[in-house]
Amino acid sequence: MKINKVCILGAGTLGTRIALQAALSGFQVTVYDINAEAFVSSKKVMSKILRMLTLSEDVIATIQFTTDAEEAVADADIISESVTEELPLKRQVWAQFSALAPAKTIFTTNTSYLLPSMLVDVVDRPSLFCAFHFHDVFTAKVVDIMPHAGTSEEVITLLEEFGRALRQVPVIVRKENPGYVFNFMLMAVIGAAGKLRTKEVASMEDIDKSWMVNFHMPMGPFGILDSIGLDTAWHVTHNLEDAGSQAFAALLKTYVDAGKLGEKTGEGFYKYPAPAFKEPDFLT
Amino acid sequence: MKINKVCILGAGTLGTRIALQAALSGFQVTVYDINAEAFVSSKKVMSKILRMLTLSEDVIATIQFTTDAEEAVADADIISESVTEELPLKRQVWAQFSALAPAKTIFTTNTSYLLPSMLVDVVDRPSLFCAFHFHDVFTAKVVDIMPHAGTSEEVITLLEEFGRALRQVPVIVRKENPGYVFNFMLMAVIGAAGKLRTKEVASMEDIDKSWMVNFHMPMGPFGILDSIGLDTAWHVTHNLEDAGSQAFAALLKTYVDAGKLGEKTGEGFYKYPAPAFKEPDFLT
Ligand SMILES: NC(=O)c1ccc[n+]([C@@H]2O[C@H](COP(=O)([O-])OP(=O)(O)OC[C@H]3O[C@@H](n4cnc5c(N)ncnc54)[C@H](O)[C@@H]3O)[C@@H](O)[C@H]2O)c1
Ligand SMILES: NC(=O)c1ccc[n+]([C@@H]2O[C@H](COP(=O)([O-])OP(=O)(O)OC[C@H]3O[C@@H](n4cnc5c(N)ncnc54)[C@H](O)[C@@H]3O)[C@@H](O)[C@H]2O)c1
Repeated sequence: MKINKVCILGAGTLGTRIALQAALSGFQVTVYDINAEAFVSSKKVMSKILRMLTLSEDVIATIQFTTDAEEAVADADIISESVTEELPLKRQVWAQFSALAPAKTIFTTNTSYLLPSMLVDVVDRPSLFCAFHFHDVFTAKVVDIMPHAGTSEEVITLLEEFGRALRQVPVIVRKENPGYVFNFMLMAVIGAAGKLRTKEVASMEDIDKSWMVNFHMPMGPFGILDSIGLDTAWHVTHNLEDAGSQAFAALLKTYVDAGKLGEKTGEGFYKYPAPAFKEPDFLT
Repeated sequence: MKINKVCILGAGTLGTRIALQAALSGFQVTVYDINAEAFVSSKKVMSKILRMLTLSEDVIATIQFTTDAEEAVADADIISESVTEELPLKRQVWAQFSALAPAKTIFTTNTSYLLPSMLVDVVDRPSLFCAFHFHDVFTAKVVDIMPHAGTSEEVITLLEEFGRALRQVPVIVRKENPGYVFNFMLMAVIGAAGKLRTKEVASMEDIDKSWMVNFHMPMGPFGILDSIGLDTAWHVTHNLEDAGSQAFAALLKTYVDAGKLGEKTGEGFYKYPAPAFKEPDFLT
């Protein structure tokens, strides 16, 4: 089977980027959203990315944007679903597209924290359903392929090839695992940084410095948390049961309650747009 | 108090590097070891580092190497101890230098995994005793300052200044913590990578790819493990009690028993000198 037509569900942060990368890679792309206003900002983001990459903006005109689900999925070889991260919503969307999509269409979800097995019972073609999870598509070019127990091997192989065609490094997650591979490790780092902070072993700045200097990286765990969003971080952390995670979740909650969600609200652990860790004298 | 004379105990991997950096930073340096042969390789390593840094090798002649403990510590303002990582040995060395050192001498240990409180009872000047832990001195320029409960605040402040004088970023570890700050976080990453591997969630290569591409880093957790040494990694991991660490320790043991200790023996998770993760097509 060859993939030609790609149907993207959700024209938000990730749907926009996946759609653009697919169009740039020569696929025929349709983007579906329930909210037509999302298309306006989606196109703006596409323009911005293309300018950053110094590529022609003509590719945007090749992408079809529609609020008509039937039209969106007509003749699609694959669906990449990036609707809002809510289980009931995703279940509703997959039930809807199970009824609408041609029999051949492969179904993939870009969920960050849910598992395909939480969605598969509403899907009419379990063997063609798989998680296919991007990071940020243009700078962190990894795509996780995480099957549920019933996903067919052919689909895994096909997604591996499709991932490469989208210029991503495919990573096979053989068994369902929350956070796939990278986020699972990142959560471990963040959990350790949280423990160091809540147990008052070291200051947030010293924790970040230690990471940045040893790994020659532009930010440390608290800078990364600010870019992820403290609401998302709280959401993931407060579901973990160990005492260390609970203590860190409680700390994150004080920031969330104060409206300090990180970079996106102008303040989190650091203040933006000029956080202390970007100051030239931070690493001294 | 001003630091002029620095006495280094142990002319191995770390003692050599700290001594060289101290001499380059304008301090008067004496290196003590029980084994005079260590001085030969120590000087060779210093030459190699200086050539890499394109600096004159004249500085080596300013460093005094001696197997005479009394001579080594005469008039020293500070001792930086980097003898072999064994508790009884370090305790013996600190008892010995407690008897020999002038009253003014500040005592610091570069231990990676022990805590200053495990050594302090043999020290004659507890308030002047502190962990002062380097990473690799020339590329990862962090120095951890980890007091035990009785270390004086003046010593902490002084070590902070001394660390900066040695061109390191000082990180204050307010409470004793195994692994300080960075190694504590690194151990969390490695533990997570170990779990992904032993639970067969993903292959070692895919785990490393995921880390390398997302963080734009030259190696992933298994490459890092090979550079740390699988014997050291096993040593740290098998002391942790959770089931995940025990499973990973068991895996590490199979490598250690086979003499595959990582880069230093030519094989660990990868084969050296040309490990797969350095191949140009690894990230595809
Ligand atoms: N943001 C990230 O960094 C990131 C990274 C990897 C994966 N993801 C995952 O991608 C998915 C989308 O995240 P996002 O950050 O792009 O969210 P977003 O909020 O930016 O976009 C979600 C879009 O879904 C649309 N939507 C809501 N209900 C819909 C429906 N019934 N049908 C069609 N569209 C609908 C919304 O109008 C919105 O445009 C989530 O599952 C998330 O976990 C996000
Ligand atoms: N290797 C690293 O990457 C690293 C990093 C940070 C800290 N450390 C710590 O530094 C210390 C030294 O590690 P290393 O890798 O340099 O070890 P090493 O084996 O390279 O060197 C140890 C040296 O100590 C000498 N020694 C043994 N007994 C002695 C004694 N009684 N008196 C004086 N010298 C004696 C040995 O002859 C040898 O030259 C350890 O505590 C280790 O945990 C190592």
